[in-house]
Amino acid sequence: MKEMIRPIEWKEGKLYILNQLKLPMETEYNIKATVEDVFNAIRDMELRGAPLIGIAAAYGVYLSVKDESFVSHEDFMKFVDEKALYLSQSRPTAVNLFWALDRMKKRAKELENLLIEDKKKALLEEAIKIHKEDEAINRSIGENFLKILKDGMTIMTHCNAGSLATSRYGTATSPMYLAREKGWSFKVFANETRPYLQGARLTAFELHHGGIDVTLICDNMAGSLMAQGKVDAIITGADRVAANGDTANKIGTLQLAVMAKHYGVPFYVAVPTPTIDLSTPTGIEIPIEERGSHEVTNWFGKATAPEGIKVYNPAFDVTAHSLITAIVTEKGIVYPPYNENLKKLFLNI
Amino acid sequence: MKEMIRPIEWKEGKLYILNQLKLPMETEYNIKATVEDVFNAIRDMELRGAPLIGIAAAYGVYLSVKDESFVSHEDFMKFVDEKALYLSQSRPTAVNLFWALDRMKKRAKELENLLIEDKKKALLEEAIKIHKEDEAINRSIGENFLKILKDGMTIMTHCNAGSLATSRYGTATSPMYLAREKGWSFKVFANETRPYLQGARLTAFELHHGGIDVTLICDNMAGSLMAQGKVDAIITGADRVAANGDTANKIGTLQLAVMAKHYGVPFYVAVPTPTIDLSTPTGIEIPIEERGSHEVTNWFGKATAPEGIKVYNPAFDVTAHSLITAIVTEKGIVYPPYNENLKKLFLNI
Repeated sequence: MKEMIRPIEWKEGKLYILNQLKLPMETEYNIKATVEDVFNAIRDMELRGAPLIGIAAAYGVYLSVKDESFVSHEDFMKFVDEKALYLSQSRPTAVNLFWALDRMKKRAKELENLLIEDKKKALLEEAIKIHKEDEAINRSIGENFLKILKDGMTIMTHCNAGSLATSRYGTATSPMYLAREKGWSFKVFANETRPYLQGARLTAFELHHGGIDVTLICDNMAGSLMAQGKVDAIITGADRVAANGDTANKIGTLQLAVMAKHYGVPFYVAVPTPTIDLSTPTGIEIPIEERGSHEVTNWFGKATAPEGIKVYNPAFDVTAHSLITAIVTEKGIVYPPYNENLKKLFLNI
Repeated sequence: MKEMIRPIEWKEGKLYILNQLKLPMETEYNIKATVEDVFNAIRDMELRGAPLIGIAAAYGVYLSVKDESFVSHEDFMKFVDEKALYLSQSRPTAVNLFWALDRMKKRAKELENLLIEDKKKALLEEAIKIHKEDEAINRSIGENFLKILKDGMTIMTHCNAGSLATSRYGTATSPMYLAREKGWSFKVFANETRPYLQGARLTAFELHHGGIDVTLICDNMAGSLMAQGKVDAIITGADRVAANGDTANKIGTLQLAVMAKHYGVPFYVAVPTPTIDLSTPTGIEIPIEERGSHEVTNWFGKATAPEGIKVYNPAFDVTAHSLITAIVTEKGIVYPPYNENLKKLFLNI
């Protein structure tokens, strides 16, 4: 049976990271033995996806102390803080990266009275815990989805909110993998997601690898499929959900939601609760990163557009909450009105 | 001043054809001296676009007889019929190609009582007439558009319904060139149009070349621009318009129309009347060509998706007439109800 791809594994005392730069052509795992190896892997984008970066960084903190000796707890803490600072500079905008490093530092502080070997062991255990917690969150998101999806459905997804961006299962892809475990069959349409083609290179790859019936389309073919009644639900991930439910995600998500509304297709957002930011009132407050023109005008070093052409290349867009059928988290399914119901999610902790 | 690009020119007794395969990197004109040259240029897609193919084929018929001698009118007609049949096999599905060849054959038949040199001259004149008529049609489409568009507007277009697909002006691009002649300034967003990138390679190129303010985007960025209120109108071409106004055009057109409806942006179709087919009752009867997976999964010979992945690659979609604000032709602007008003267009001939 085909197996879900794992982008990161801790196995027999070693950290294995899948080199995503070589996907979809090669499935190459490399052992990362040192904190520098982990730093380079994150910086060079051998792995990507906010949760996955956080997990790798946590292991990186452990790897940094693994073969060191320390004269005091103060000395140990100074070293851990230094290495965490170093790792934090690998991808400076990744929220999960800072969160995971803070958690490792906090854990280190608690270890004052332990022997050094036990300190090291405790840091490894914390990294593994962060790793396992992410798996559990993603699995719960998938389980919640299976309450509202049905066997035999055709689901469309965008970009890669998949296993490859997390520890396992992914967020938007989690119900697809769990449905397969359960013996259900989902058919999936993966949008290629220009300009960076995460849908083609990553989502189509990982679903195909996991034995799921996936069909690749260009982003401009989604509407035609919906018009033909060939899509039962759309599931995307999210980069940030505002307090009113407005959702920032990879460019192209908004137009899927508009079309879904027009054709009566349910549009779902899959997110772990840390991605919901109640301190951001609406989508208007979410800054949208604009990237350079090169991604749009060049392909493997070959120009596909005239030289000097102006390009607009926003990396994300904001989907208005009114277009979202439900927001599915590890803690449950949230329906409108989001202003009220997203808050409740956090009160129930 | 920057000049509109011309994909075909008859100049000092010679036929020049722009090699569109080398766009956007090189602007290379080649002289086509023989009917075989014209056949190869059409077959190899040095030029494309239904009107342009028709014009080139008409010149091809003239080039075939140019240096020949004939013993009788019968002999002349046999030769013309043969060469027209040969040219018709260059791109077997192009309606304008057959139409132009029939027109050249019809003209040839009328020339029975002329001397051979006058016959040749008359065929060249007919080809030039076909060429000039296409220019006039496109110019009229643009003039009609300028009755409903305003100086300073931002217009979005898809694929290439431009100069490069016709003799001059294009259809969707005609108002842009005429506005420039008039001193108006339009800002244009060109969708790149996956998988074949006609928007990036051709539309962005020709508008930029013509001195028009054009910005290239990926197809999945259109909705974001409309949501931001940055698009005043959308203009696309059409491959076929049915009697009820349903319009087949390049894949991705439909979703622009859906989003335009959602955001209150006018959606216009630019077409010469021969593209309106009253014998096709609705869009349901329009066959949609599905193309191979290679266009989607490969780029300059490099794989961008996993091997063996399923792909859905329709070349066209059908935009429901209810999403179309107006259909603009050389004979005037047609508003809903299209079932009634498209017919009137033909009664007025």
